[in-house]
Amino acid sequence: MDKLFAPQAVVLVGVSRRIGVGAYNGLEMLLRYGYQGRVYVVHPQADEILGHKVYPRVEDLPEIPDLAVIAVGRDLVLSVVEECLAKGIRWLVIITQGFADADTQGRQLQAKLVAAARQHQAHIIGPNTMGVLNAHAHFTTAFVDLICPAAPPPVALVAQSGAPQVGAESFTGPLGKAVDLGNAADVGFPEVLDYLEQDPQTQVIALHIEGLSQGRRFLNTAARVNRRKPIVILKTGVSVAGAQAALSHTGSLVGQDQVFTAACRRAGLTRVHSAQDLQDTILAFRKLPPMRGPRVGIATPSGALGIIALDALSREGLQPGPLPERIVREVEPQGPYWHALHNPVDLWPIGMLTGDFLKIAGQTLAAFLEDNHIDGVLCMLPAIGSPLHSNILATPEFFANLRLDRHQKPVTVALYGDARETVRNSLGQVPGVACYFSVEQAVHALGQLHRYHQAVSRPPESWPEPAPANPGHPPAAAIVLGQAALDFLAGHGLPTAAGRLTHSPAEAAEAAAALGFPVVLKVISPDYLHKADQGGVVLNLQDEAALRAAFQRLQPLLKAAAPGAAAGLLVQKQLSGRELLLGLKQDPAFGPIIICGFGGTYTELWQDTAQTLAPITLAQAHDLLASLRSYPLLTGYRGEPQVDLEAICQAMVNLAEVGLAYPHLQELDLNPLIATPQGCWAVDARLVWR
Amino acid sequence: MDKLFAPQAVVLVGVSRRIGVGAYNGLEMLLRYGYQGRVYVVHPQADEILGHKVYPRVEDLPEIPDLAVIAVGRDLVLSVVEECLAKGIRWLVIITQGFADADTQGRQLQAKLVAAARQHQAHIIGPNTMGVLNAHAHFTTAFVDLICPAAPPPVALVAQSGAPQVGAESFTGPLGKAVDLGNAADVGFPEVLDYLEQDPQTQVIALHIEGLSQGRRFLNTAARVNRRKPIVILKTGVSVAGAQAALSHTGSLVGQDQVFTAACRRAGLTRVHSAQDLQDTILAFRKLPPMRGPRVGIATPSGALGIIALDALSREGLQPGPLPERIVREVEPQGPYWHALHNPVDLWPIGMLTGDFLKIAGQTLAAFLEDNHIDGVLCMLPAIGSPLHSNILATPEFFANLRLDRHQKPVTVALYGDARETVRNSLGQVPGVACYFSVEQAVHALGQLHRYHQAVSRPPESWPEPAPANPGHPPAAAIVLGQAALDFLAGHGLPTAAGRLTHSPAEAAEAAAALGFPVVLKVISPDYLHKADQGGVVLNLQDEAALRAAFQRLQPLLKAAAPGAAAGLLVQKQLSGRELLLGLKQDPAFGPIIICGFGGTYTELWQDTAQTLAPITLAQAHDLLASLRSYPLLTGYRGEPQVDLEAICQAMVNLAEVGLAYPHLQELDLNPLIATPQGCWAVDARLVWR
Repeated sequence: MDKLFAPQAVVLVGVSRRIGVGAYNGLEMLLRYGYQGRVYVVHPQADEILGHKVYPRVEDLPEIPDLAVIAVGRDLVLSVVEECLAKGIRWLVIITQGFADADTQGRQLQAKLVAAARQHQAHIIGPNTMGVLNAHAHFTTAFVDLICPAAPPPVALVAQSGAPQVGAESFTGPLGKAVDLGNAADVGFPEVLDYLEQDPQTQVIALHIEGLSQGRRFLNTAARVNRRKPIVILKTGVSVAGAQAALSHTGSLVGQDQVFTAACRRAGLTRVHSAQDLQDTILAFRKLPPMRGPRVGIATPSGALGIIALDALSREGLQPGPLPERIVREVEPQGPYWHALHNPVDLWPIGMLTGDFLKIAGQTLAAFLEDNHIDGVLCMLPAIGSPLHSNILATPEFFANLRLDRHQKPVTVALYGDARETVRNSLGQVPGVACYFSVEQAVHALGQLHRYHQAVSRPPESWPEPAPANPGHPPAAAIVLGQAALDFLAGHGLPTAAGRLTHSPAEAAEAAAALGFPVVLKVISPDYLHKADQGGVVLNLQDEAALRAAFQRLQPLLKAAAPGAAAGLLVQKQLSGRELLLGLKQDPAFGPIIICGFGGTYTELWQDTAQTLAPITLAQAHDLLASLRSYPLLTGYRGEPQVDLEAICQAMVNLAEVGLAYPHLQELDLNPLIATPQGCWAVDARLVWR
Repeated sequence: MDKLFAPQAVVLVGVSRRIGVGAYNGLEMLLRYGYQGRVYVVHPQADEILGHKVYPRVEDLPEIPDLAVIAVGRDLVLSVVEECLAKGIRWLVIITQGFADADTQGRQLQAKLVAAARQHQAHIIGPNTMGVLNAHAHFTTAFVDLICPAAPPPVALVAQSGAPQVGAESFTGPLGKAVDLGNAADVGFPEVLDYLEQDPQTQVIALHIEGLSQGRRFLNTAARVNRRKPIVILKTGVSVAGAQAALSHTGSLVGQDQVFTAACRRAGLTRVHSAQDLQDTILAFRKLPPMRGPRVGIATPSGALGIIALDALSREGLQPGPLPERIVREVEPQGPYWHALHNPVDLWPIGMLTGDFLKIAGQTLAAFLEDNHIDGVLCMLPAIGSPLHSNILATPEFFANLRLDRHQKPVTVALYGDARETVRNSLGQVPGVACYFSVEQAVHALGQLHRYHQAVSRPPESWPEPAPANPGHPPAAAIVLGQAALDFLAGHGLPTAAGRLTHSPAEAAEAAAALGFPVVLKVISPDYLHKADQGGVVLNLQDEAALRAAFQRLQPLLKAAAPGAAAGLLVQKQLSGRELLLGLKQDPAFGPIIICGFGGTYTELWQDTAQTLAPITLAQAHDLLASLRSYPLLTGYRGEPQVDLEAICQAMVNLAEVGLAYPHLQELDLNPLIATPQGCWAVDARLVWR
């Protein structure tokens, strides 16, 4: 991929003869960006553009360029690509729009481009892209005039748009490298992440993701890379990827965005929800050492800002650390007699009294940095431009004196006042300090570092691709219900309530005798998907007479319903306990997802579910259960006994394996799973095969 | 209050003889700020400071200044205040720290200051304050060197800290007027709001609130002022004001911050949760006309930004409006044949083809502005500093041509690119347009305008102060339970289950016969606050034998418990239906609060509650109920009949009146209230009298 990011020679096909304002001339932009490699231009008519000799066809070029940048009209792109491939060019950036981003014809054209490239082991970036940017090599394929930063930062962006390159100030901050994958027809996130993992010029990676196809491949790569180089993700399209109409609880309860969130959490990836957050988080990762715990030392020139900091800490899952003894000993005695110190340390009354605010701030920060009970430091600092306050403006020397390199704790600064830009710029190159313009942002930065540290402290994981589709499945029926569904699950290690599908009162009575009363009787038919609501369930039948009476009541429902192979009246052992929902769902990007939640009649009301990717361990199953709001019901709510958590967790582990084994099993509900102190059993299930 | 904000003459007591760096000399700051009024300085030793004659005592001044600014050590403040009051000065700004912000002695000193001032009908700002700022009059009492803006904006700030004045760029943006209430010992938010309501130089008001005492007085004033001049509130101290340990569900379920949120919602006040949001929201109110509906027209040069906009719209409760016919007719045909337009309108392919991006953007915005199905407009605009892109930089003329004044719809612009500051500055004076640096902020601004418009479209309300404490209450017992509690409620129009407190099996049998079986039997004793968990309740007693047996079981529990006036075994009609919680609580700031929620055994598990200030109307009661997650249970969940909503709402209205009538009723639970299609009845209650 070096040929893409730092080509020795590049050919531009589709450069305008116009230059200047409004020309969007890629050659002009490349030259202005300072590229020093060899540039060839192909144009059918022109002789020369911007002093560069123009070749009529790609085949006429005197060498094989590392990269072709193609910006002709969409109808010409395929023939240009074929020319380039014939010439031996293996990297193609296709700027042109109007492919899968436009209409059916565009989608077909795009498929042809990809097929052609793959035949030649060549790679396409795009189409519908601004292409690549490498500030280290002064290289860009943009049709917009970008400014190459003098000192490119070790930050790389992989996006599905050019806007974050043009608007780097609004998205990531300055960029060292970037690629716009556009429609991502060929090269996608995993390939670029593989490259960036090894790239010595990159330390932090930003991703702008609109959609993913091979979610597990992405996740395996990203989880690995993230442990070496933090990955920060802005995922968009949240509002259009809600839960779709589905045939099961599971299908309707969990939308694609929740799955993406679950995937990021599982892989330890940092997900942000706004462009500002993206930028703030990248700055923290770029400049600060790890935050190894939640305890923050806070120095503030204003009690009010200290309160704002405490609010923000609480939102971030952080906490004020204990006040270091050294502050009580050295700092407090310098203040007014009535001024007792706490954390946050209010510096102002002491600074006013001593006349040396920065000295007090420095002593306080030093005490926090050296204290073992503090994991990170937050400092609010006034930045007032007036010469009358030059003595309270923090300088690079102020932080150099703190010897931050020795302490390896993150320090974030919230600057306020008219000179905040000036001070931030002056501190920009000071290692170990990151400046923000609000308390909330400075605290959030510490929160992001803390969550990242927790995530990468867990053992690494990877997620296998599901088994290939098994020709033995799907079974005949697209929807499998009742005993047939329970039998399938029982065959895969899931605990199910004992029961038998019956077709006559006598058969039912015999089944009940074998199972032992009390029993329940249920109509099993695709016409009775919501059988409890449809009057198709009779609970708590105590003896044969009651069972026979119930059979007579339910039989007409079954007769009126559409006939089905597995239809009948199910006699089942009556169980009572806590009702859970377990489920599976095949996510279009991430494959099998396992869900647990509050089950039974009120599943949809409370929507209390948690989800993650299959497979899972017993410990992960327990973490998932414990994240439910209704988890206290399982552990002995208001004096009741705790249910058999291990049995539930084992059922979840086994269910996740089912998801991996049967990629055609689109949705699966096990609702309710009845949990008691003695075990758990599914009493109803539904399978939806694709 | 004009004497405070724009004094003709002011005396400074406690000015340092030092000037310059680190002196924090209030006189120096005032002169640098450009104040043109008469300034007197009182100092025991100096003859002259900064060319101003110094008076040894306040009484020596040749006139009575409008305002005194006091910055002497805390132990001298009271005597200086007395001097000022004796002189006839009626406005005092007390800068000095170390009062209620410090220790017990400070609190006592502060009380003395207030008493002295009130005796003279004088007013104190502070203590522990930076005081006032009035850029229109070039007046400040700050000990920090602030810069007076050339064109003060119509924005006023009332804060409990000086930091937002020093850091206006980080909090509100530029300020026309500001006051730091400090400890707010005397003058508080309502007095300043009354002044700002009438102040022609103020159109938007920002409040920084740490704590409030007289919440209803504040709310009545703020709700009234907010209808003329939008009020934006940054309330801090959220993390320290969680729900306290309490004796009832209601007490423990609703914390002070939730009450503040409920109060703001009720009064239609805009609450923000970060300094950035404060600033963004003020800008919107300052510059934009009302947003009368949720439908947004979106123009974007990038599909990716359009998706980000849709995500943000969805978070804000806004939606993309329909694509105006005029855009289909005039704009779409100018683009490539494969480029079909939707809202968001992707401008770039058309701009590239026509070479005139701004013309296309202008046509699109004009079409949105004139379309009756669009309530507000969002435009993403590249701001690239390169001269090659000067033709796509939006100018004031671009917006002037749109004749925004004719359409009266808000337009927010999200600028991205290296020239975003330049473009924002150039558009700063264009009315009807507000510029932000991210899509999320630009959309949030529209969301804030929309919510404000909805809020002030509701009829105005006011909130009476609770009745004065009635000497007839509290009753003897601090905690009132069981039938005694139900009787109290029944006496105030609340529906309660029929029941009788009994002390013998015979008495119980007689009660049950009168009520009709089935009945329940409950231990009533302060030792059985959680009687259901403590085995003190027997449900569903079908006949006298069962009742007598239950009585024998429960009687020992009662005997072992502490004796109490209202103790006994309660026989109650057995009811079944949906279980709700209704409650009351006296908030320290806002007085009686009414709560409704999911009730019964799982109240604490789901914590599904909603709360607002008493009193309420039937319609407000219904809105509160409808905001519960469990509301569908009341309206006919899964085919069940709807319960009697009106009876519940009427009970809530009556309960709210109880809260207003009995300020000593600290907490009250009515849990469960059982609701059926035929009505609702409280079957258990608890009253906690202060």
